[in-house]
Amino acid sequence: MRLSRYFLPVLKETPADAQIASHRLMLRAGMIRQQAAGIYSWLPMGFKVLRRLEQIVHEEQQRAGHIPLLMPTLQPADLWLESGRYDAYGKELLRIRDRHDRDMLYGPTNEEMITDIFRGYVGSYKALPLTLYHIQWKFRDEVRPRFGVMRGREFLMKDGYNFDLTYEDAMHAYNRHMVSYLRTYERMGLKAIPMRADSGPIGGDDTHEFLVLADTGESEVFYDRAVTDLTLGRREIDWNDRAQLEAIKAEWTTPYARTDETHDEALYTQIPEDRRVKGRGIEVGQIFYFGTKYSEPMGAVVTDESGARVPVHMGSHGIGVSRLVGALIEANHDDKGIIWPESVAPFGAGIVNMKPGDAAVDATCGELYQALTAAGVDPLLDDRDERAGAKFATMELIGLPWRITVGPRGLAEGKVELTCRRTGETEALSPQAAASKLAEIWSAL
Amino acid sequence: MRLSRYFLPVLKETPADAQIASHRLMLRAGMIRQQAAGIYSWLPMGFKVLRRLEQIVHEEQQRAGHIPLLMPTLQPADLWLESGRYDAYGKELLRIRDRHDRDMLYGPTNEEMITDIFRGYVGSYKALPLTLYHIQWKFRDEVRPRFGVMRGREFLMKDGYNFDLTYEDAMHAYNRHMVSYLRTYERMGLKAIPMRADSGPIGGDDTHEFLVLADTGESEVFYDRAVTDLTLGRREIDWNDRAQLEAIKAEWTTPYARTDETHDEALYTQIPEDRRVKGRGIEVGQIFYFGTKYSEPMGAVVTDESGARVPVHMGSHGIGVSRLVGALIEANHDDKGIIWPESVAPFGAGIVNMKPGDAAVDATCGELYQALTAAGVDPLLDDRDERAGAKFATMELIGLPWRITVGPRGLAEGKVELTCRRTGETEALSPQAAASKLAEIWSAL
Repeated sequence: MRLSRYFLPVLKETPADAQIASHRLMLRAGMIRQQAAGIYSWLPMGFKVLRRLEQIVHEEQQRAGHIPLLMPTLQPADLWLESGRYDAYGKELLRIRDRHDRDMLYGPTNEEMITDIFRGYVGSYKALPLTLYHIQWKFRDEVRPRFGVMRGREFLMKDGYNFDLTYEDAMHAYNRHMVSYLRTYERMGLKAIPMRADSGPIGGDDTHEFLVLADTGESEVFYDRAVTDLTLGRREIDWNDRAQLEAIKAEWTTPYARTDETHDEALYTQIPEDRRVKGRGIEVGQIFYFGTKYSEPMGAVVTDESGARVPVHMGSHGIGVSRLVGALIEANHDDKGIIWPESVAPFGAGIVNMKPGDAAVDATCGELYQALTAAGVDPLLDDRDERAGAKFATMELIGLPWRITVGPRGLAEGKVELTCRRTGETEALSPQAAASKLAEIWSAL
Repeated sequence: MRLSRYFLPVLKETPADAQIASHRLMLRAGMIRQQAAGIYSWLPMGFKVLRRLEQIVHEEQQRAGHIPLLMPTLQPADLWLESGRYDAYGKELLRIRDRHDRDMLYGPTNEEMITDIFRGYVGSYKALPLTLYHIQWKFRDEVRPRFGVMRGREFLMKDGYNFDLTYEDAMHAYNRHMVSYLRTYERMGLKAIPMRADSGPIGGDDTHEFLVLADTGESEVFYDRAVTDLTLGRREIDWNDRAQLEAIKAEWTTPYARTDETHDEALYTQIPEDRRVKGRGIEVGQIFYFGTKYSEPMGAVVTDESGARVPVHMGSHGIGVSRLVGALIEANHDDKGIIWPESVAPFGAGIVNMKPGDAAVDATCGELYQALTAAGVDPLLDDRDERAGAKFATMELIGLPWRITVGPRGLAEGKVELTCRRTGETEALSPQAAASKLAEIWSAL
């Protein structure tokens, strides 16, 4: 993209009412615009990041064998009356009445509807195991929306639901979700720690939240430092191998890690003192096993091998996709702006043309643009007639991981400058070498 | 995808309340499930088609230089009070009140919000031309939703908005949209004819609808047969070349083509009689130029070169993405089921394993599956233990453009059968030749 043709409305002043870094930076970098309390437009660069996250979530869900569909944003109240949540959910449920006075609601989650879909078509254990998921806009009518997209009212969530014949099968689905979530966050350059959690209004027995460590997190967290050293890395995962997934879960959940809701001081003090950490975290996902809580009242039953009709074991599993944009920035920024990990950056690199109109500089910028585009780096070319300082400040604010500076003086010696946003380090390279270096990084993503 | 692991709930019986072919076939092929009047879940295969259409729309919009963002589904009533449409829009506008008694609405369209975004950031003609678009769920509280996704209440629409300094610039944007829409429909395998239209509640002067011819269309259409012979084909388009785009518009809009709303019998009868056609059509898109209708009352003004402050010229341009799924089926089906054009098929080919458990048949199916996946054909492998007749009927119902039948008898002679869904023609080929033939078709898409 050429910046002169793009719509990137960066702000000079820091918005007064934004209390946390991600909210401030998303407004300043022209990523979002508030349209009502807790309701945002995703401006072009914000939308681009959101789509990258959505794409990673889709890929990792499908890698684990989960099947995408799409449920609507609005739901009939009937389904929620059936499960008993219509009255239980409280004021966070946005209730709507249509022109024929039918009661509807804007879905904050989809247990009822997915159970309705399942019971509408499935009658035999042969269709199991089955995990269906969607990525759709949800609404929670927060009494005090704040922190930008971190606690918005209209938010994008991936929610998935497993249907299994037995408790053991459902726990395999639980583990599969845990491992696929670990992979998902790692691909985004995030360290998210699974912590034992409370189940809240979804209900259920086994549940873990995934928390990203950040000083601005809304949850207090207590953990064994050892858990932050774990990575999945490039290990091969066989999604049907129950023992392997169980072992990975054990690896991540054996070290103590809990939120204040489930914290157990006696267990915590058993950790060697130098490994005990108290901090804050941002919840970016949660997995639940809740057995037959919905299948029983709603009649989601299948015939098992013996011919008996049994309610299916279910769980639900969510990733806050829009919230992740905020969490990523909380975990990746400095006083100059955002620092995107390569895998989720809106553009992989910025090319700064220091002298638009200079034939050699324009030509080199054009060649770099083509080479980086071909390599999948998806560059943003700043071809505006602006001061160098303003161009650099914009690049630092919007946080593209790499910047290539192309000016007449360097070019006279056959060089451009390649600057890493995270380290601030700059090296002088030929344009070809700069493009190759980035192409190599992207091919390894 | 292996069918044994997929969720494809095909129905044997024809749903009683579905009046048109696309509605019946989408229900029978397990593409959608009604959740409330005019509100549908998109089951996995339906969602897949929807995503393919969305992807084509994104690609063609960005090819024409338009910039994607994403506005929320809910909007504050304030913006609509400002434009005067809050009271004018009537009962199709779904009005919502949140927990703090603030008036909101589920957006049926986004002229007000995009104008608000524009005026919030842009002050100079230098930022123009600018076209922003999004693909988002909308709601129109139809009094009688019907025909499945063709006249639903919650629907997916691409709506784009151009901001230009002058009438001439805005008409270039209008032409750009017309040509990019023609490209979009052509890529989907649809013949959509631009017809002069009425502007309705959006308001405006110049407007064309795009209609797909189908006996079940809700609009009566009158046209010169010559217009159906036109194709863009592979011609190179320079989106900045005003004369080229104007010429393409003239090519498509010179032959008479109107809906009953703008029909002019006197003009129509000037067409040579053998070229006059009366038929029915389905509206799948509309483009508008409406000048300063929103920019003036809402204060979307820029400073022009002379320093004067002038309201921008705008237009809005929509494609009904979810409705297109229905329109595609209306235009592409027979008595056995759907017939997807290759470019939008949920899976490009079905591989029917005639004898699961037979080592040679399983191996060939596996090899074909890999080869077709690598070629981007995205096959669906029917590996279920079912009668051949049931497998063929499912493939015909869901309408995959190609079917490869792999059985022990054919394989003994080194052959599989390749069947074209549209023509019904079958040829016996080696597995490699069948895969190559499809790879070739897909590489040309």
